[in-house]
Amino acid sequence: MKNFPSSENSPNKKYSGPLAPPYVEIEQRVRYSETDRMGLAHNKNYFEWFEIGRTEYCRRQGIAYKDIEEGGRCLVVVESFCRYKKPLRYDDRFLIRTAVRDATPKKAVFVYEVRTLDGRILIAEGYTVHISVDENGRVSPLPEDIVARIKSP
Amino acid sequence: MKNFPSSENSPNKKYSGPLAPPYVEIEQRVRYSETDRMGLAHNKNYFEWFEIGRTEYCRRQGIAYKDIEEGGRCLVVVESFCRYKKPLRYDDRFLIRTAVRDATPKKAVFVYEVRTLDGRILIAEGYTVHISVDENGRVSPLPEDIVARIKSP
Amino acid sequence: MKNFPSSENSPNKKYSGPLAPPYVEIEQRVRYSETDRMGLAHNKNYFEWFEIGRTEYCRRQGIAYKDIEEGGRCLVVVESFCRYKKPLRYDDRFLIRTAVRDATPKKAVFVYEVRTLDGRILIAEGYTVHISVDENGRVSPLPEDIVARIKSP
Amino acid sequence: MKNFPSSENSPNKKYSGPLAPPYVEIEQRVRYSETDRMGLAHNKNYFEWFEIGRTEYCRRQGIAYKDIEEGGRCLVVVESFCRYKKPLRYDDRFLIRTAVRDATPKKAVFVYEVRTLDGRILIAEGYTVHISVDENGRVSPLPEDIVARIKSP
Repeated sequence: MKNFPSSENSPNKKYSGPLAPPYVEIEQRVRYSETDRMGLAHNKNYFEWFEIGRTEYCRRQGIAYKDIEEGGRCLVVVESFCRYKKPLRYDDRFLIRTAVRDATPKKAVFVYEVRTLDGRILIAEGYTVHISVDENGRVSPLPEDIVARIKSP
Repeated sequence: MKNFPSSENSPNKKYSGPLAPPYVEIEQRVRYSETDRMGLAHNKNYFEWFEIGRTEYCRRQGIAYKDIEEGGRCLVVVESFCRYKKPLRYDDRFLIRTAVRDATPKKAVFVYEVRTLDGRILIAEGYTVHISVDENGRVSPLPEDIVARIKSP
Repeated sequence: MKNFPSSENSPNKKYSGPLAPPYVEIEQRVRYSETDRMGLAHNKNYFEWFEIGRTEYCRRQGIAYKDIEEGGRCLVVVESFCRYKKPLRYDDRFLIRTAVRDATPKKAVFVYEVRTLDGRILIAEGYTVHISVDENGRVSPLPEDIVARIKSP
Repeated sequence: MKNFPSSENSPNKKYSGPLAPPYVEIEQRVRYSETDRMGLAHNKNYFEWFEIGRTEYCRRQGIAYKDIEEGGRCLVVVESFCRYKKPLRYDDRFLIRTAVRDATPKKAVFVYEVRTLDGRILIAEGYTVHISVDENGRVSPLPEDIVARIKSP
């Protein structure tokens, strides 16, 4: 299956991969419920998959994401972007690769790639921008040790 | 509730609103199942809402989106972006405004705003880029009359 | 479109409609993202639609469901059932009818029908059983005035 | 965490476990996007998980479910039921156990349990009833070899 036609003048093209290591990988399969009437995985699911990648990234860095929340901080999503290059179908297996482009106590940018299992073919790529807020939604810096671990794979 | 902190150096800032008319509006409510454990509408739902806006936009232009598909063309999503400005909670009502920034036989860019019911407060904004393909995934131009209607609200 | 074949020896057949008034109605449309690769609305969405019906039912009885939760009670779902009679497709409009079969301070049973817009054709029917718990998940009776309003449409 | 209060007079109680072998197991984790504002996995997700169990069950029996569809048959869901015993939270790991209660060329009943990773604690149980139809929605028997494999774990 060839690529979807590109839209090269995208304002986001500088986020184009390939993602260089270090990154964290996790494998998933397309659920039946994630397909749509075109027979393809629906565009919204990629943002769920990015979130799975983000959770796994944190876990490998020794951070349980839910512990951040239990410590009173949330990393709210303030931007999300995905560029879809090739379709996925029901029961297809794929890799999610996740890395951190930028992390400060107030902000983190995660970048993602969805690839075929052998890692060769890029299916989609994207990023999410997160801000650390407290329970009242006010900007509230993350502890330095968490920031250090988010940064250092 | 104040804004989420902005990330002004976003590569997408030129898509910032406010959206000028003509645009198409549709009202929705946040479903319980659309909230997450933070108590907020989860980021992936905005892409479902954009899709509701897009369907409504086409309907008001006299195009049933399913007729495009039954005519053998699909407008596959090749890029999607959302910037989240303020949170939404369970049962909140909101408007989705949809307009077309660009439409040719091969490509269409839809832009969206999510706003409070009175239209005053911007909750989120974003866009999706679509390419017209045939049943085999090859680029295949839309009929001119459909393009004309997509363009002309 | 004819019915799906019935499975008449279902243990749930006594929940079969038609639902007699009083019930509460709300109209919805099938979202693109709710379809699957068969081209039909996926079975899980009916439980989201039942929830929309339940929220609307409470609202018409003068109860904002979120107020129950803000009062420290949750109506957790302990059982859910759906029987699918006919398919729904992208952009189809439909009615959700909701009634209460049973309500006590500790437990409520909601029953639902999904019907075509004119009310004539039954698309699906089902029920959910809810238990009132406090923030620690312990059974905790609802205030009597809420129970009375849940019961009395 | 103790059980949700039971509703023992449920019409479905005969589906109560424990599921005896043979069954097929697959492990999953609760996604962030699967939680709701109560902090628990939302009731609709269990039906997605049942579907993951069903896909895995077929795969272990040597049937790729998508091959059934490519052979022109769909196993449409005509009933689904879930009883929720204990809550699941973000990032919790769990097992899905799937077995077949009944399979004929026209109909199949799958039964499921969701359990903690060690298999000891029942989190939820349920079933789905499926009818084999052709592309026009008419009852159309499955080939005997497929039925035999569905039955025989």
